[in-house]
Amino acid sequence: MPKKKPNKKQILKRAAKIKLLLTDCDGVLTDTGTYYSVNGEEMKRFSIRDGSGVERLRKYADVETGIITGEKTEIVRKRAEKLKMTEIHLGINYKDRTLKEILERKKLKPEEVAYIGDDSNDVNIMKLSGLTACPADATKFASDIADIIVESKGGYGAFRDFAEIIIEAKTKKKLYRKDDDESRQN
Amino acid sequence: MPKKKPNKKQILKRAAKIKLLLTDCDGVLTDTGTYYSVNGEEMKRFSIRDGSGVERLRKYADVETGIITGEKTEIVRKRAEKLKMTEIHLGINYKDRTLKEILERKKLKPEEVAYIGDDSNDVNIMKLSGLTACPADATKFASDIADIIVESKGGYGAFRDFAEIIIEAKTKKKLYRKDDDESRQN
Amino acid sequence: MPKKKPNKKQILKRAAKIKLLLTDCDGVLTDTGTYYSVNGEEMKRFSIRDGSGVERLRKYADVETGIITGEKTEIVRKRAEKLKMTEIHLGINYKDRTLKEILERKKLKPEEVAYIGDDSNDVNIMKLSGLTACPADATKFASDIADIIVESKGGYGAFRDFAEIIIEAKTKKKLYRKDDDESRQN
Amino acid sequence: MPKKKPNKKQILKRAAKIKLLLTDCDGVLTDTGTYYSVNGEEMKRFSIRDGSGVERLRKYADVETGIITGEKTEIVRKRAEKLKMTEIHLGINYKDRTLKEILERKKLKPEEVAYIGDDSNDVNIMKLSGLTACPADATKFASDIADIIVESKGGYGAFRDFAEIIIEAKTKKKLYRKDDDESRQN
Repeated sequence: MPKKKPNKKQILKRAAKIKLLLTDCDGVLTDTGTYYSVNGEEMKRFSIRDGSGVERLRKYADVETGIITGEKTEIVRKRAEKLKMTEIHLGINYKDRTLKEILERKKLKPEEVAYIGDDSNDVNIMKLSGLTACPADATKFASDIADIIVESKGGYGAFRDFAEIIIEAKTKKKLYRKDDDESRQN
Repeated sequence: MPKKKPNKKQILKRAAKIKLLLTDCDGVLTDTGTYYSVNGEEMKRFSIRDGSGVERLRKYADVETGIITGEKTEIVRKRAEKLKMTEIHLGINYKDRTLKEILERKKLKPEEVAYIGDDSNDVNIMKLSGLTACPADATKFASDIADIIVESKGGYGAFRDFAEIIIEAKTKKKLYRKDDDESRQN
Repeated sequence: MPKKKPNKKQILKRAAKIKLLLTDCDGVLTDTGTYYSVNGEEMKRFSIRDGSGVERLRKYADVETGIITGEKTEIVRKRAEKLKMTEIHLGINYKDRTLKEILERKKLKPEEVAYIGDDSNDVNIMKLSGLTACPADATKFASDIADIIVESKGGYGAFRDFAEIIIEAKTKKKLYRKDDDESRQN
Repeated sequence: MPKKKPNKKQILKRAAKIKLLLTDCDGVLTDTGTYYSVNGEEMKRFSIRDGSGVERLRKYADVETGIITGEKTEIVRKRAEKLKMTEIHLGINYKDRTLKEILERKKLKPEEVAYIGDDSNDVNIMKLSGLTACPADATKFASDIADIIVESKGGYGAFRDFAEIIIEAKTKKKLYRKDDDESRQN
């Protein structure tokens, strides 16, 4: 049975505490697609809109970002590095263990960490995170347990939607700000 | 005239017997897309979500998987090998003959084999399989004859949807299980 | 003002006369997408489902196929050759002139040629063709003048939809036939 | 609060004055997607339909075109050069400053320039442009302030939709013209 979702006010209260936003890769930053050539896995498709979310979190809300994924490919690392994410964890079998290690190392409390995921292997880490979300097209595994089902699909701005909720909560301001036009290279 | 579809209870009863799930490639594991460069066919797009289905079938339901496709390209083999599928049949003109060969070799009964396909060249093998499905956006050739039209489109989780029905039927459990968080590399 | 569309019966009557089906490339065989790398145009995405249409036209309805496109790239030629299309015309500024040349050379009457296109540069050739169609997401230029607006979008089976109408009209049979399972490599 | 949108008549009046149409890249000419390989950013997907828009603006309405983007990649330059765009500005942090430089250099008035963008870093330049639009799937940042929300999504003809409005306004003619069939190579 799906978890009862918190209301908007509860979400903003919890979002205001977030210092680190972690994300799954496939199905959140991508539309689950992976492109194969005769040489095997060749490419993944990411969204510039999510990249702007990473930058805006850093710039306006002082929130760090990171990726935790079961996949082990340098494609993901390249994208994470381009976005200057600080936590990059590939080939992870037990995501909850990785989260515990991060909390300890960075001296963060669980309520200071947000997580967005889309599938069964995201469930345990979602149970340990202060605020959770999933894309509009997530599997039932994730949508049953997530605090928020965002408006966009994976690979089409789902991460950005979650980022903007956190930015709004932390800045107490709605969306656009005058100096917003600087540097977007993501 | 479309075949009358079995009801949910009938489907689960038949799904519980499945030991091998075979799939078409283009239109099921992909959205029918094939990417060409000046060198000819270059890439195909698969879904990580289907890859998780293959792994979950093996891990939780002891169900083997395989691909039977009319196309003959090493791209498909690379994907199938990554997923550790056991039956990989490329360039097949008569899919029903391949199924008969598999049944004999593996000493399986037709009712122990499930098949998912999307087009006219999947019809004959579907008639010989114990349980059949097609993606939400299959051609009428396949949707008329399939036992189940799953919720997702080809390349966007159609195979996974079918896999979860079989897992549910074989484990008598709904979806998520506590130890689900292990190893997802697909 | 959009042209009045013929009814189903009129369409089948005209479709039964078709001996050659010509198609635009971008927006019909593709979803208008073109993939660029730092080297310029790199790839286009085609649909296997349309490839089956080409083969089925040849096999069941004795209808030849061809491409006429304004673009000039070897990517399109590779796809057309894979499908064993007989008329391949790239870099064409005046498609109606190319059609006239084909009619003369092959000793065909206009009513024996069908054409599917999606945009303004397809209008003049459509006016000369015996039966015309456009994808579900064509521009108004093409949808205003086409005899048939097919159900599928460009790159997602629009050509196939048109092909099946012609096959049905020419074979006087609905869709699937028993020997359909042979050879699909497209 | 979203800006009150001008009506069709007001739009056509302002569109008739346009001499230069500038566009953002990601999210307008693309669907925000960026394709990564192990070597980093590899490809972007553009639409041939937008390419036709650039050519039709030049041919029928004597309107120049250009790109202003925060991203700095030769992929975008290749596409812009293929389309013979005259203003190509990559890696731009302050798009409004770039516009001011263009106005001065080309001796254009703000009301002679149109702009289409989709996100927060497009807001300031949109405030300075004579007529503005955003794709159907733009962020709220852009859709709140744009004069027109076009029918198509980014990467699927949004730029073309805007181009056709300007062509219609400047030529006082609706859409298709007899000599339209010439040269489309984009």
